[in-house]
Amino acid sequence: MNVDWIVHNAREVVTLAGPARPRSGSEQGELGLIEDGAIAVKGDRIVAIGPSGEILRDHVTAPEHCLDAEGGVVLPGFVDPHTHLVFAGTREREFAMRCAGQSYLEIAAAGGGIRSSVRAFRSASDDDILRQSRRRLDRMLAFGTTTAEVKSGYGLDSEQELRALRLIEQLDREHPVDLVSTFLGAHEFPDEYREDRAAYVELVAEKMLPRVAAETQARFCDVFCEQGVFDRDETETILRAAQRLGLGLKVHADEFAPIGGAELAGELRAISADHLLVTTDAGRRALRDGGVIAVLLPGTCFSLGKHAYANARKMIEEGIPVALGTDCNPGSSMVDSMPLVLALACLEMGLSPAEVVTGATVNAAFATGVGADRGRLEPGLRADFQVLAAPSYISLVYHLGGSHVRWVWKDGRRVLSAGDAA
Amino acid sequence: MNVDWIVHNAREVVTLAGPARPRSGSEQGELGLIEDGAIAVKGDRIVAIGPSGEILRDHVTAPEHCLDAEGGVVLPGFVDPHTHLVFAGTREREFAMRCAGQSYLEIAAAGGGIRSSVRAFRSASDDDILRQSRRRLDRMLAFGTTTAEVKSGYGLDSEQELRALRLIEQLDREHPVDLVSTFLGAHEFPDEYREDRAAYVELVAEKMLPRVAAETQARFCDVFCEQGVFDRDETETILRAAQRLGLGLKVHADEFAPIGGAELAGELRAISADHLLVTTDAGRRALRDGGVIAVLLPGTCFSLGKHAYANARKMIEEGIPVALGTDCNPGSSMVDSMPLVLALACLEMGLSPAEVVTGATVNAAFATGVGADRGRLEPGLRADFQVLAAPSYISLVYHLGGSHVRWVWKDGRRVLSAGDAA
Repeated sequence: MNVDWIVHNAREVVTLAGPARPRSGSEQGELGLIEDGAIAVKGDRIVAIGPSGEILRDHVTAPEHCLDAEGGVVLPGFVDPHTHLVFAGTREREFAMRCAGQSYLEIAAAGGGIRSSVRAFRSASDDDILRQSRRRLDRMLAFGTTTAEVKSGYGLDSEQELRALRLIEQLDREHPVDLVSTFLGAHEFPDEYREDRAAYVELVAEKMLPRVAAETQARFCDVFCEQGVFDRDETETILRAAQRLGLGLKVHADEFAPIGGAELAGELRAISADHLLVTTDAGRRALRDGGVIAVLLPGTCFSLGKHAYANARKMIEEGIPVALGTDCNPGSSMVDSMPLVLALACLEMGLSPAEVVTGATVNAAFATGVGADRGRLEPGLRADFQVLAAPSYISLVYHLGGSHVRWVWKDGRRVLSAGDAA
Repeated sequence: MNVDWIVHNAREVVTLAGPARPRSGSEQGELGLIEDGAIAVKGDRIVAIGPSGEILRDHVTAPEHCLDAEGGVVLPGFVDPHTHLVFAGTREREFAMRCAGQSYLEIAAAGGGIRSSVRAFRSASDDDILRQSRRRLDRMLAFGTTTAEVKSGYGLDSEQELRALRLIEQLDREHPVDLVSTFLGAHEFPDEYREDRAAYVELVAEKMLPRVAAETQARFCDVFCEQGVFDRDETETILRAAQRLGLGLKVHADEFAPIGGAELAGELRAISADHLLVTTDAGRRALRDGGVIAVLLPGTCFSLGKHAYANARKMIEEGIPVALGTDCNPGSSMVDSMPLVLALACLEMGLSPAEVVTGATVNAAFATGVGADRGRLEPGLRADFQVLAAPSYISLVYHLGGSHVRWVWKDGRRVLSAGDAA
């Protein structure tokens, strides 16, 4: 068969082949490895995957499109299921304040925190926000990410939240990395509603959400359910309104205090509950019973200098699928590298290299609503994959610091070539 | 004055200007920042550094050599004071075994550990070792390292140890990153001397060391002083022999058990004692009294999944200069990124962003014996510096994952250009 691309001579092809659903329990560690493998691409789809000899025998392409992976690794492009990628300005000073022992509250009192990013977002031009965000997206791609979820949440009024979602859509059109947008109007209470929380919840639920559903391509609604931010009832009001409008649900749950976010996520059958650092037994039961994916964000715990990571091992054992994301944001996790997140999940959460790869591919794809054709490498699925100049998928978490990516394909197009391996 | 290069419009120039000695106490946090600064280079030297307006007024160069840092950061190239860069083969499987809870001893029993790298080194060709090491060195340069200390220690017999030192010298000649070599014949007992440790100590001290001093450019001798490896007396025998031959001294001390390595380093006035995870009060007193630099290697602690980092804060308070290095090696720290090490030193050791930059520049340069003209940016010193596409030196530790390096100069030559900032 004539194809557009063949990548062969991969020491390992990580396929994640198997059922089209998130993986948990022992399945979280099953990668479907093919040794000395190859992949063939036509249009935007994978048409064959298997042993190199077989693929080279059965398929032909132009010589310049038949690429030798030289013993490297082929794996799905990462799906980053939780980012706040589209923001304006960075918050280096807060990092230094945290190093000096200052607390989140002290930093907020000094003008920092989410609300400082809201001020920056509201006053920045579209061009400036796009330029900054595009650079971050380039870095994500250089680390192998081909699809990312991106939340609004630095606008916190109707016009600015809609602007954020439109900017995400514009970036999605312009950049090879696919973006899936989430409305997070309930990221924080804006300054102008500090004294009237109910009015802001009503604004989000009754004014913003209908416009989001009608005017944008947002697929999810998320709420920061946390002590001092949105309580359980406020979260439920907003999420039920979103559900009525046909949006999928996500919840920032149990990051600092277990106020019922996981339980609510389970009850509403949210697609994911995210963070989950302090989730209780009851919370985990609700997640499992509700079929909710746990999106864990160890870069945040690390960047905040905390040491109480989410109990990923227990979640996997109890049958909750674990996905991993960067939480890329200017306050608590200025991280755009999925491999760093995977290394943290191994070293700080005790997961295996195989479990974290599942968390960054098939499980992350389902947590982003794109699991039907991404996050696995099988014939018929989307040709979104990366080729590493490294001898094993374990190199992702073992050889720390930089990127091992040599090439990235997105929708069957080679969108990154980091130079030939030496 | 006519110069070869001007880099101007840096929001921050981190000079570390000041006395030509390692910094400790409050000096460890003093960066000598110049805002809106510029640097001028002629030959391999810095000829001027100061406010952009002044430098542009007083110096001229070809237009294509007058570069706009666009609000980025200029800082000295990093000096990595502790690496085992020249090795053959990687040890991914051991990483996965550690994730699965296996101990160092179990891994060694399964054929892993330093001795597996010794077998790989001995059987690999020069070309293969050079090719692998060159790639790691390219990655280090991409993260801003311009000088690195490199140890032998995977040969563990006379010919193989001399070969390692010659390979380091060859790499040094070929690659823009400068290498300073250290003889570490006492890295481990080789298989053939497991039953006769005294004979190996004698071999190192009386046969290898004289040849190292006569036939190579090694500047230091190091010993892995540790329970189960070289005890304090064995370490002393080797280091005193090295001292008589005019080599500087380094000690792998107190990584797992405090068996007197720091005390010995102080007594012998070693240039550095490295690791120091479990150093006692007496050990720190000896380091301070002996004028020894503490070379801390948080990437190792991190990569081993441990959480008991060296007590850097106490060392600084007590007047011991702290330097930071990658410990790049295939077993316990497959890390080639100095920024990752700096982030770990902030987040896991509680140092400030300024303190860690001092640790990776001026203090690391003194720990590597090159402090006279590297690790600081002042007129007359070597033009080894990096320019970051980032708004603050704090970005190094705040914005995690990839490299912020836009350009690197080594000895007055621009050796890396990562593309223009967007």
